[in-house]
Amino acid sequence: MTVIAAATGAADVLVALFVVLLAAKLGDELFKRLGQPALVGEILAGVVIGPSLLGLVEPGETLEVFAELGVVFLLFWVGLETRLSDMRDVGLTALRVGALGVVVPFAAGYGAGLVLGESGATSVFLGAALVATSVGITSAVLIELGALATTAARTILGAAVIDDILAMVLVAVAVGVADQGGVDVTSIGVVIGLALGFVVFVALGGTRLVARWPDVFHAPKFSESPLLPAVILCLGLAAFSAQIGLAAIIGAFLAGMVVAETKDRHDFEEEIAPLYAFFPPFFFVFIGLEVELDAFTDAGTLGLLLAITVLAFATKFGAAWLAARSMGTRDAVVVGLGMVPRGEVGIIVAGIGATAGVVEPDLFAVIVGMSIATTLLIPPLLRRALARPADG
Amino acid sequence: MTVIAAATGAADVLVALFVVLLAAKLGDELFKRLGQPALVGEILAGVVIGPSLLGLVEPGETLEVFAELGVVFLLFWVGLETRLSDMRDVGLTALRVGALGVVVPFAAGYGAGLVLGESGATSVFLGAALVATSVGITSAVLIELGALATTAARTILGAAVIDDILAMVLVAVAVGVADQGGVDVTSIGVVIGLALGFVVFVALGGTRLVARWPDVFHAPKFSESPLLPAVILCLGLAAFSAQIGLAAIIGAFLAGMVVAETKDRHDFEEEIAPLYAFFPPFFFVFIGLEVELDAFTDAGTLGLLLAITVLAFATKFGAAWLAARSMGTRDAVVVGLGMVPRGEVGIIVAGIGATAGVVEPDLFAVIVGMSIATTLLIPPLLRRALARPADG
Repeated sequence: MTVIAAATGAADVLVALFVVLLAAKLGDELFKRLGQPALVGEILAGVVIGPSLLGLVEPGETLEVFAELGVVFLLFWVGLETRLSDMRDVGLTALRVGALGVVVPFAAGYGAGLVLGESGATSVFLGAALVATSVGITSAVLIELGALATTAARTILGAAVIDDILAMVLVAVAVGVADQGGVDVTSIGVVIGLALGFVVFVALGGTRLVARWPDVFHAPKFSESPLLPAVILCLGLAAFSAQIGLAAIIGAFLAGMVVAETKDRHDFEEEIAPLYAFFPPFFFVFIGLEVELDAFTDAGTLGLLLAITVLAFATKFGAAWLAARSMGTRDAVVVGLGMVPRGEVGIIVAGIGATAGVVEPDLFAVIVGMSIATTLLIPPLLRRALARPADG
Repeated sequence: MTVIAAATGAADVLVALFVVLLAAKLGDELFKRLGQPALVGEILAGVVIGPSLLGLVEPGETLEVFAELGVVFLLFWVGLETRLSDMRDVGLTALRVGALGVVVPFAAGYGAGLVLGESGATSVFLGAALVATSVGITSAVLIELGALATTAARTILGAAVIDDILAMVLVAVAVGVADQGGVDVTSIGVVIGLALGFVVFVALGGTRLVARWPDVFHAPKFSESPLLPAVILCLGLAAFSAQIGLAAIIGAFLAGMVVAETKDRHDFEEEIAPLYAFFPPFFFVFIGLEVELDAFTDAGTLGLLLAITVLAFATKFGAAWLAARSMGTRDAVVVGLGMVPRGEVGIIVAGIGATAGVVEPDLFAVIVGMSIATTLLIPPLLRRALARPADG
């Protein structure tokens, strides 16, 4: 009740949630009517209502949590559509794409930092920010285009897991360099071991367990349907994944793959669909909220943004395309494009660098701008690439 | 990804959400197996994981927002099950129950405050905290028992709307007394007018509009189903309701009644069910998180808690029962019990009083304890009352 709710702050957050969801769906509606990718409309809606333009909504903690759950439920959905055997088929290519797609952009970003006269620590951060793929964006485009079940899509997903493990190592290195001027090899080894162990254990052990006990999600009495047991698994693996230094979405993706082994997967998809409809718009709008248009009124900063964006695009696309070219030209292009969006991940890396004191405000704005630019460029390009016939 | 997510705080919130949902469902499971009301299990799970016992989770802002959405989706669901004509049939009785159920507990609380030697301002707060019914708790019990479509249930819902409008006025008076030692009658008149206007306009205008244009929620292209347009309406009315000083749940309840007029209400219920399964557990656990068991190791405080709880129970039950006795003994008892839980509302009133500096820590703990005690007492009693045959 009452005067009350207003006094606690929860009422204002309710207004923010309403404004974000409404804006997202107006952007979605407009872009669908224009024949453009809906998620681009949602991200731009975030730019419009955010601090840069109308200033209706600030990107605070609660909205960040909704955005995080948005990408968690997005990847949970993607995991549901993915079988372990599909991933095995693309394993080697995905490994190549992930590895080459990390090494080349990192080297380019690090080199560019040194050329620009930045310190070693700052250059490491610029390299790390160029590395990390936002698989959430690519997944949403692939779902929108109905292309999630293709070999190219699975290669992207597999590569994104590899990419995330390697990016985690790079950021740990970058933080080590910024904090102590050096790197603790043992602790990084432990982190890598834990991450690999988690992924392999859940992907192999979890799916086998559910395949043998297919009504495990029906066992509890607290729920008539398997929805909540599966959602609890998803949140648990996402939280654990984030705690050991991986992305929360890796855990959510693995949880989806595990749940996909249950007996009534299609009923389950219908049940999870409303959560998948409700949360992801917060993720897209949140990316838009973080844009700082003011920083780019300066020609030098704008020029740097263009240069870094071209570098981020060219190195990731080139490396992934090269690693995937055995799949044929069309699919290699799809994989290359699919790895390009930096989305929220580049923004987070820049934020860590800023907190560590080695990424200055201008460079921060440039990295955020690059993350958004690569994210907005890809949906239309990916749509065009997928419209072409596949070749051998 | 990475080190990253942990650095932003969102990862820790993910852990808290996981722990809360898991604990809620373990409490639910245990109480269902014991043949007890599930929501009592969820509230007690909150006590166990909260600061009083295990200390796993603190009641922070993000959890509060999830709790608020929990009760918003709960009342949205209740609204979906309610037709305007049902409410008209119980209108007069609901008005009597609401009005008498506010006046008697307020007078008793105010009087008790004066007898205890508290100041006038503090006594007004104690009275206001005894007034407000938490219809969320009663609704959840009625849903669990399949009794939402009964006349008694509708009387409770109607009375809760009246109750909330009157409680809003009382809290405005209480805050006025605490801040300036007086009350601004004009501004309170404006607030009442706005609240009544909003309720009548949405209940009459909104339902008629949808009845005339039954596929309005199918009109947008952004959604294949009416889910998101309806959820946006729900959040918008809930936020507006909270902004004008009413409970957010009043707006959500009205939104549900409006959406209930759409052509495919049953398909819609299936779609909203997952959101209704996901959010309300956060509401129940959050109530439990706010318990402070430490305060009651002192015998005097414990005695005061018992006295205030008996007063809160007896005055609300007695007044509502008296006002509803034309419905027959069984239904009058159901209505009386249904109005008793104070839940989150009493806690919020106490919080406002504490912020205004007129509710001391001990009295705060007592009001919170009374709110929880009335909330935990009602589910088993209501279940027993509903099991009896109705009489004339």
